[in-house]
Amino acid sequence: MSLDPAETNPDHYKVVFENDRVRVLEYTDSPGDKTTVHEHPDSVMYTLSTFRRRLYSGDSHRDVDMPAGLTGWLPAQQHYGENIGDTESHVIFVELKAGAGGTSDGPALGPA
Amino acid sequence: MSLDPAETNPDHYKVVFENDRVRVLEYTDSPGDKTTVHEHPDSVMYTLSTFRRRLYSGDSHRDVDMPAGLTGWLPAQQHYGENIGDTESHVIFVELKAGAGGTSDGPALGPA
Repeated sequence: MSLDPAETNPDHYKVVFENDRVRVLEYTDSPGDKTTVHEHPDSVMYTLSTFRRRLYSGDSHRDVDMPAGLTGWLPAQQHYGENIGDTESHVIFVELKAGAGGTSDGPALGPA
Repeated sequence: MSLDPAETNPDHYKVVFENDRVRVLEYTDSPGDKTTVHEHPDSVMYTLSTFRRRLYSGDSHRDVDMPAGLTGWLPAQQHYGENIGDTESHVIFVELKAGAGGTSDGPALGPA
């Protein structure tokens, strides 16, 4: 069974970019929404909204309040979560592909 | 002379996160602002505003219109740029550190 969040929870996790170095996911949900268990590789996350969330990992959970505009590091982990606030969640995840070094080609984009 | 944008153009490029895998820059400017020549490693960029920009590379330039909410790939390059629109620019850059594979530790953040 895949634990890729784009497969386990496709209504919430959309792949918006991918190459050999990274995959970028856009996460959205509404108050009360809950994900099923899934796995993240080491990722950078950037919050686009302010939200409140309960994170379940194994038998424990913890609640987090996330402000919009926060850059965070999500170390590789398996978990699931629930929107326990009254606002929508909107987050960008930049997943790092392990062991991919060097440079990659692709279309050039601004800004400079 | 350093070509690190956080050093060449510190009024525009702020380091908002860094570990051994990535460095995250937040870029902001206003209409008419221009950067000096600087260098980016392979980076993911995410636009937080809609803006218009002239990108200079060597002896040539090109103009780009960037919508808010765009995820793009910026391959390693040296350039400088100018806000030629009438809106502020706001962009997040996730710089990838070359050759860093494996996993990293750090504080866990949501959402799940």
